[in-house]
This record gives sequence, structure tokens and C-alpha cells, in this order.
Amino acid sequence: MTLTNRQWLLAERPAGMFDESNFRLVETPVPEPGEGEFLVRNIWLSVDPYMRGRMNAGKSYAKPVEVGAVMEGGTVGEVIESNHPDFRVGNIVEERLGWQEYGVTGGRLTRRIDPALAPISTAVGVLGMPGMTAYFGAREVMGVKEGGTVVVSAASGAVGGPVGQIARIEGAARVVGIAGGDAKCRYCIGELGYDACLDYRAFGKDSAALGDALAEACPDGIDGYFDNVGGWISDAIYPLTNPFGRIAICGMISEYNLIEPERVPRYTRQILTNRLRVTGFIVTDFWSRWREGLEAMAGWIADGRIRYREDVEVGIENAPKALLKLFRSENFGKQLVRLHDDPTA
Amino acid sequence: MTLTNRQWLLAERPAGMFDESNFRLVETPVPEPGEGEFLVRNIWLSVDPYMRGRMNAGKSYAKPVEVGAVMEGGTVGEVIESNHPDFRVGNIVEERLGWQEYGVTGGRLTRRIDPALAPISTAVGVLGMPGMTAYFGAREVMGVKEGGTVVVSAASGAVGGPVGQIARIEGAARVVGIAGGDAKCRYCIGELGYDACLDYRAFGKDSAALGDALAEACPDGIDGYFDNVGGWISDAIYPLTNPFGRIAICGMISEYNLIEPERVPRYTRQILTNRLRVTGFIVTDFWSRWREGLEAMAGWIADGRIRYREDVEVGIENAPKALLKLFRSENFGKQLVRLHDDPTA
Repeated sequence: MTLTNRQWLLAERPAGMFDESNFRLVETPVPEPGEGEFLVRNIWLSVDPYMRGRMNAGKSYAKPVEVGAVMEGGTVGEVIESNHPDFRVGNIVEERLGWQEYGVTGGRLTRRIDPALAPISTAVGVLGMPGMTAYFGAREVMGVKEGGTVVVSAASGAVGGPVGQIARIEGAARVVGIAGGDAKCRYCIGELGYDACLDYRAFGKDSAALGDALAEACPDGIDGYFDNVGGWISDAIYPLTNPFGRIAICGMISEYNLIEPERVPRYTRQILTNRLRVTGFIVTDFWSRWREGLEAMAGWIADGRIRYREDVEVGIENAPKALLKLFRSENFGKQLVRLHDDPTA
Repeated sequence: MTLTNRQWLLAERPAGMFDESNFRLVETPVPEPGEGEFLVRNIWLSVDPYMRGRMNAGKSYAKPVEVGAVMEGGTVGEVIESNHPDFRVGNIVEERLGWQEYGVTGGRLTRRIDPALAPISTAVGVLGMPGMTAYFGAREVMGVKEGGTVVVSAASGAVGGPVGQIARIEGAARVVGIAGGDAKCRYCIGELGYDACLDYRAFGKDSAALGDALAEACPDGIDGYFDNVGGWISDAIYPLTNPFGRIAICGMISEYNLIEPERVPRYTRQILTNRLRVTGFIVTDFWSRWREGLEAMAGWIADGRIRYREDVEVGIENAPKALLKLFRSENFGKQLVRLHDDPTA
């Protein structure tokens, strides 16, 4: 079997906003699994905002992708050749094999997926990293105040969508989303159960104007803010917080392409006066509790209390485009690329 | 008995930095206590940074002092006339009677002080509001990581002094202070047991230069920062934090006189990447645990594990000067004004 593997390499590090020229699509022979390894045909590639960070040099919470290396990413695929005792041909697995059609792994962090439980794509979505980010971030990092008001940015996204619904399950009285465009806002209210949703595009990056609209949408103030976006949108939150408000900083997609951070008035006065707790987190800090999160989310999905939506591009050649969609707020739900037909669908 | 009461009123609200002209010293007759009230001759007036906030109009966590009203402040004094069953002439009490020589109260929040236990001035110092701020702020809000590095700003002050010592008691391996001037730094190291202390005056408001010196003083990074000052000094902390670092925002004396907040690069990237927890707090949030704090601090003082220092101005006429000293970093330890001779000393 001599198959061709198409891979996207990081061609050069972007300065500021990236584009397709930062990547290079190459064809290589599909690798042979060595002793104790297995070969996976990737079916689904997860596309996530953190990938922009991996394109930069320098220390973050994770190592950058080297120039010339395959772009990093979570994948779901099928084992098609195995020299590993625990993984057999036909197994569906979640791995981090990156932006390529095939990959070999020793299986140390590979998770076997049961296609009978849910569509296998959810293993990188609502039943994977973004879903766990929502679960632990909303419950443990932000915390949901019984009867309080929660605001979620990127409210219809892979993380924000579950967060809004979890906040409701956990007892928030009012859940308000911020999303890009009218269709997403209608979806947040109509499908995900948000009480209100503001289209940030209507405010021309004017934090104060967004703040006025938020104040109206949150008549009892803001007790919890789940921040996926950072930047001018999040600046609008601080003045509206209630005493003991909590802010979970999960992401800052609006800032990832900045060469220099923007300068803003210090938030410290609001943090002090309102006794806010502002906490940054990364979902892998909750690795040891993954099973708990998966079981809870699976239960809520089965109950119909958590709904989700996927946005699928087809073909490895569209991976950069899919990532660009995130940064243009053009994705609608969890962004995926389907690399091969899904035999379980 | 017709005594004269000298009082400092708030004469006008300052715009930016205040000075003595914002206050007016008046003489009034000493009030008579009504039914269920008692009259206190104030001996000690506590002088604290929060007082600057009370001079502003507008909502903060506490109501502002009205223009024309007596300036607010914590006091320790002696009951000299009483129509209250629980407070007798000669009792020493802690109250909030403000910037005046005498005051009448109904006693609802009055705390009786035992002069045998400690100098009564400590009831507004290390065994009062600032001491409780240090105790709950260091232990509960910041939290002290066993074996970690803690940095304290205003390190020799009424709050910072105890914080540095509590951090050590709670297991910090390294405690580093930031203070204004060489004498304070020597005191922090020599008397309070700090491992190192940086004189911020040597850095000309250059956060990066202070950061370089801090990096050297904290070779294992910063796990906890107890922030009393805000501004450019605190800006230097964020890049040096370790993963899961914790920042307690207790005060921001460097910012209280600003008309507009300074603009700085957003901290959110460090908060996210390093999973920081940044928490603002106000000591009165811990009212229900006051006794616990007092007992712990009293024990540590008795053990010699907590030392403190007081800076005393004499005479009500010097109250504005004493407050100005805080904002010029000219106080050395807990700032007090002695209004009458201390009969217990």
C-alpha cells in the first residue's frame, strides 16, 4: 500500500495577521508504523483558535510549531494498520496528529472513541477539548452564581455554545451572549437558550457603545463573564460587573494577531472595587478530571440540554481557510475539516 | 463640661492630587451623648490610603464623605461620658469616629479594647483593619504557595509589613519586598525578615527596569503578589509570574490621585498563558471572621513572629499632613495621629 499523505507545514511565522501563505501543502508517502505504533487515516481535523499561538516563536503555555513542521491539531481517525496490542484496524481514535491526512502514533495519549455513543466528530468538539473547556471553565474557573447573570463571548462557538447552556444548567438566571452577526445571535437565542445576544459587529469596536447595550441586556449587572475573545469586547464587561463577579479568561482571539498588545486603561480599579476574581485557564490543567467532564456533557447532550453545531470544510486543502474563518468570525459552530469520508456517519 | 472639639471637614473634592486646602479645620462644641450613646475622647486616629477614595464623589465600594462633613477614619479612644449600658467611662474603644478629637456613638460597631493585651494604637493597626487586611488577604485571597516566592509592594507599610511576615509563616520560601527608600528596604530585610527588598525610587517609574531587578531578586519566578500600590510597579510583576500565580489586589495607592487611569498593555495574555488568578478584595468582606484573624495575629505578635512599626504625628492639626505622607511614601510603618495623650501607654 503506497498512499500519498498531504500535509500542511508551517512555512513561515506570521507577523500580525496570518494568511494561507504562512502554510505550505506538501505530499509525502504515508509513513509506516514501527514496532508498537499504528497508522491512522484522519477523518476529522479540529480547527481551533489556539493554533494561531502555535505559529509564533517564543514561550507560551505550549511549544510553538517549528517552521517546516506539520501544523499541530486534534484529529479523529480510523486505525488502518497497527503494530500496537491495544489498537486494532478499524478502531476510531482521537489523537493530535495535526494537519495531515495520515499519521503514525505510539498511542500514549490516544483515546479510543465509541461511534455508537455520538458522532465521532464530537470527540474534538463538544465531547472533546472545546467541550471540556466549556465544562471546567464555566463550572470551576468562572463558577456560576445561582440566580446570577452570565455573559459569554463567542457565544455560539465550540466553547461558548456549551458555556451558555452549562451556565443555565448550573442555575444562572440570565445568560447573555455576544456573537458576530445576526444569524449567530438568532441561533444563540433560538437554539441554545440564551436570553439575549448582542451582535458585536453593530458597535464598530466601540467598547462604550457595546457596554451601553450590555447594560440594557443585563439589568442586574454581570456576575460571571466567560471570555473567549479579549480586546475591546471584553473591555466593555469590567464596568458592568457586580461585586464578587468572576471572569474566566479562556481565550483572546481578537488579540492573537496583534504584534503589540493594545493599550487600555488598567482594569485594576474595577477588580479592586468590585472584588472581582479574574482567572486564566487552559483546559489541559483539568486532564485528571476528563472522564467526569465527558460523562456530564454526554448526559446533557442525551437529555437535549446541550445542543451544538458544527461547521465543516471538506478536504485537507481547506485547513488554512478553515482557520482563517475563525479569525474572521465566519465559522458558525465548531469548525472542522473533513479529511476523509466518515465511515461511521 | 464645655470642651471644644476640633474637626477636619472635607472642604472640597480634589481633582487629581489633593492637598491641605481640600480640608477645613473647625472648632465646635463637644457633643452631648443622647440616650443609649456615649462620648469618646479620641486618642489615636488611623490614617489609611482608602481615605483618598472617600474624598471623591461617585460610587465606589463605600459611600464618599460629603463635602462639609467630618472626614472618615478609624479611631481608638476613651469613653468619657456614657448613657450606654455596655460602655463605661474609662473603657478604651475602637470606633470609626473620623478626623476629630471627640465623637459620640451608639456603639453598634464599637469594639472594646483591652489595654493589657497590646498598645491600644494597634487596634487600628496590626490588630485592626490593616492587620486583618494582611491576614485574610495573604492567606485567603492571594494564598501562599508552600516553597514559593511572594512579592509584596509597600512592603514595610501597615499592610505590607504583616503580609511579608505572614507569607513566611505560611511557608513561602522567598519573600521579596518593594518599598520606597533605602531605610525601608533595610528595615524590611533586617527587621521583618524579607529575603530581599527593592527600592522602587531607583527605577524612575520604568517598569521594565524594575522587572529586570525583580527577575534577579526572584530567580524562581513569582508565585504570589500582594499588591498595595498598582500602577507601573505592579505592571512589572505580570511578566515574571509562574504558572498558577496569584495576585491579590488590595490597594493601588499610586493610582488614587489619577483623574484618568493610565493606559497600559492589557494584562490578559499573561493572565491566560500563566493561568493567573487576580482577585480584588476589601477586608470588610471578612467581617465574620474577624476574631479568628485577631487571635492569629495576636499570637504571632506574642511569639515575635510578627513585628510592626508605627509612624506618629501629634495633634489633630496634622491629620492632612499625615495623609499626604502616605501618598508621598514618607510614612514609615503604620501612620497614626495622636489626638490626646494615651493614658494606657
